[in-house]
Amino acid sequence: MKLFEDKISSAASRVRIALALKGLDVERETIGILGADAINRTPEYLQVNPQGLVPALLTDEGVLLTQSLAIIEYLDERYPEPPLLPGRLEDRAFARAVALAIAADIHPLLPPRVTAHLSAIGVGSADVADWSRHWIRVGLTAVEELLGRRQTGKYSVGDIPTVADICLFPQAVNAERNNLALGQWPRIASVVARLREIPAFIDNGPVPRT
Amino acid sequence: MKLFEDKISSAASRVRIALALKGLDVERETIGILGADAINRTPEYLQVNPQGLVPALLTDEGVLLTQSLAIIEYLDERYPEPPLLPGRLEDRAFARAVALAIAADIHPLLPPRVTAHLSAIGVGSADVADWSRHWIRVGLTAVEELLGRRQTGKYSVGDIPTVADICLFPQAVNAERNNLALGQWPRIASVVARLREIPAFIDNGPVPRT
Repeated sequence: MKLFEDKISSAASRVRIALALKGLDVERETIGILGADAINRTPEYLQVNPQGLVPALLTDEGVLLTQSLAIIEYLDERYPEPPLLPGRLEDRAFARAVALAIAADIHPLLPPRVTAHLSAIGVGSADVADWSRHWIRVGLTAVEELLGRRQTGKYSVGDIPTVADICLFPQAVNAERNNLALGQWPRIASVVARLREIPAFIDNGPVPRT
Repeated sequence: MKLFEDKISSAASRVRIALALKGLDVERETIGILGADAINRTPEYLQVNPQGLVPALLTDEGVLLTQSLAIIEYLDERYPEPPLLPGRLEDRAFARAVALAIAADIHPLLPPRVTAHLSAIGVGSADVADWSRHWIRVGLTAVEELLGRRQTGKYSVGDIPTVADICLFPQAVNAERNNLALGQWPRIASVVARLREIPAFIDNGPVPRT
């Protein structure tokens, strides 16, 4: 398998964490994602993945998989141990709901292609920064509420790290980089503190732009 | 089971289509989603679901499930026939990738809470309308490219409707309502035309605001 990724991408971080939790060692290639849309992609990568987005995973059979959550479900089905989803149906739905509350309700509003488009339609740079902080705040408040509804163990769902934690960790790192202290969401802060004890997480978070 | 939904919500439409494909008849309650965030939610619904978002599914065991894709995966695991995902692992990943290319890359940029926030930070109404059309156009172009990479059957993935089609159909209806003709994406137009022959789809699309 080969992972196309970028160190600063939260979505790529999710797949890196999943691979590390599974103990899978794969070939990696770093793709630039700065700037709007695909403008910084090399022609070679656009041949591999015309959308230009990361992450993408090339399977051993030569099939290119895209979308971090689809890749994580694939890895979990193909390499079942350790599982990235709980066993009970309602718990699986809850883990996926937390994951999607981040991957579908927060992250899509934040990537460079979106903030670049806001600038292009005349939104000032202070308002663009506020935009990101606004959606992180709204979204993590919703996640905090979700955790309060059902969280019982060490992590987001029970005592093993799941896809919920895999999405939460990079988003929490990103929130702190946007000067939002996790302490305002005590359940999130507590789960993230425990995830910071796990090498698969701390070694594979999103890396800030330099 | 009881579904909390709104007729105009694409995300609720996905769950309605999934329930119809499974032949499941559930109790339903319509929740208003007009306006920003949760402002139009009744206190009764905020008791049920503090986030105020739709859809939400209350299981027979009294567990409230949120996030349309998490609910659809739950329905598919609990009521396996007919399946909403293909059998082969790569095909399952592809179906989920198409679903997420819509549910995570297009739809999150379009809901009322986002367009209301754009207005609140001073973006004019013409630019807000262009915003929606821009992301639908970018996103469906990506989906068209995805389908070109792997689509082989009648629908998005093979010859049975999957979660990919369940996400594509409401988004296609929404694109047409934004005056974007599907003909510019021939593979999407062809799949959607076939989905329009299936009652589970045509009876459960998002209904326009009146």
